[in-house]
Amino acid sequence: MQIRSIETKQKILHAAQELFSKAGYESASVSDICESAGISKGAFYHHFPSKQSVFMELLSEWLKGLDAGLETVRSSRSDASQSLVQMADILPEIIRASEGRLPIFLEFCSHAARDRELWKTAVAPYQRYRNYFQEIVSQMEPAEMNESQRKAAALAVVSLATGLLLQGVLEPDAEDWAAVGKESLRMLIQGMTRRS
Amino acid sequence: MQIRSIETKQKILHAAQELFSKAGYESASVSDICESAGISKGAFYHHFPSKQSVFMELLSEWLKGLDAGLETVRSSRSDASQSLVQMADILPEIIRASEGRLPIFLEFCSHAARDRELWKTAVAPYQRYRNYFQEIVSQMEPAEMNESQRKAAALAVVSLATGLLLQGVLEPDAEDWAAVGKESLRMLIQGMTRRS
Repeated sequence: MQIRSIETKQKILHAAQELFSKAGYESASVSDICESAGISKGAFYHHFPSKQSVFMELLSEWLKGLDAGLETVRSSRSDASQSLVQMADILPEIIRASEGRLPIFLEFCSHAARDRELWKTAVAPYQRYRNYFQEIVSQMEPAEMNESQRKAAALAVVSLATGLLLQGVLEPDAEDWAAVGKESLRMLIQGMTRRS
Repeated sequence: MQIRSIETKQKILHAAQELFSKAGYESASVSDICESAGISKGAFYHHFPSKQSVFMELLSEWLKGLDAGLETVRSSRSDASQSLVQMADILPEIIRASEGRLPIFLEFCSHAARDRELWKTAVAPYQRYRNYFQEIVSQMEPAEMNESQRKAAALAVVSLATGLLLQGVLEPDAEDWAAVGKESLRMLIQGMTRRS
């Protein structure tokens, strides 16, 4: 892509995020985005087929920080349990980054919940993270676990991480979320690996 | 309240839920609700000060099933760990009940996320559940836990429960959520009570 073209795309994304945040995803039209970005509709549709695809691109940008953090955990695989606990270090950063984006994300999800196809696209990142944790848990290979316990263990890690993130976004300053996250993950892992 | 008045209130709630579900919380106006319920605006404002208060009443009705389930756990307090694990039995019912209501709830939250006062009201039930679990965990009194570990333990239980519920709502048929919930809670409790 040429530099000018990249700049145009960035302008669209920037304008869309501003408008989605202020006016709401539903209220902001493609025309509004074009006007705010100072570009033509032709230029818009050269880069994105729809408003929805702009949202999906924004979402994937938002998730880049999370992806990078998780990749660090994955690559330092000397001890899977240790890496999993260290994961809690990235919680505060994700919570901070989520603040302004949460209303947009929630509004998009509410539309997606009424549209089966859109829903599949919206939950795709979530399923990616679930698979990621299943992989980590299987690395830990807690000896006495059977298949269904192993599956439950992975789902438990995902549930715990999701729940911590949600609570952190609801009340960012209420707790030291990195510390709470570490302690919680430590307890869960201890319960997973020391089963009677 | 007289029988006729109770009936009117039920008509409003029923019409509002239908409209919020089909058209969305934002799109449905008080006039629409009155028309659909076949009542006057005077009658509406006799029962509710605003559309928002109708939503809050619907939310508290939706949570009644959850509250009743948790009350059963609280009252059978012979063994707090056991009761906590049994709580997973109510998961599938809550997941089923959430399905049609999720789009409405998400849309409301997206508005609430833009309005600090509304947000406080919207997260109040969540805080109630968190206090509830803190109480249960303190009943368990894992001997070697200090104050901050105890707090983390309560937050971990809430996070796990929230995350399981969210995953269940995203993919209701993907797992036996009662079984996964029990296994996950068992692991977490084991980690909480058998700390080294």
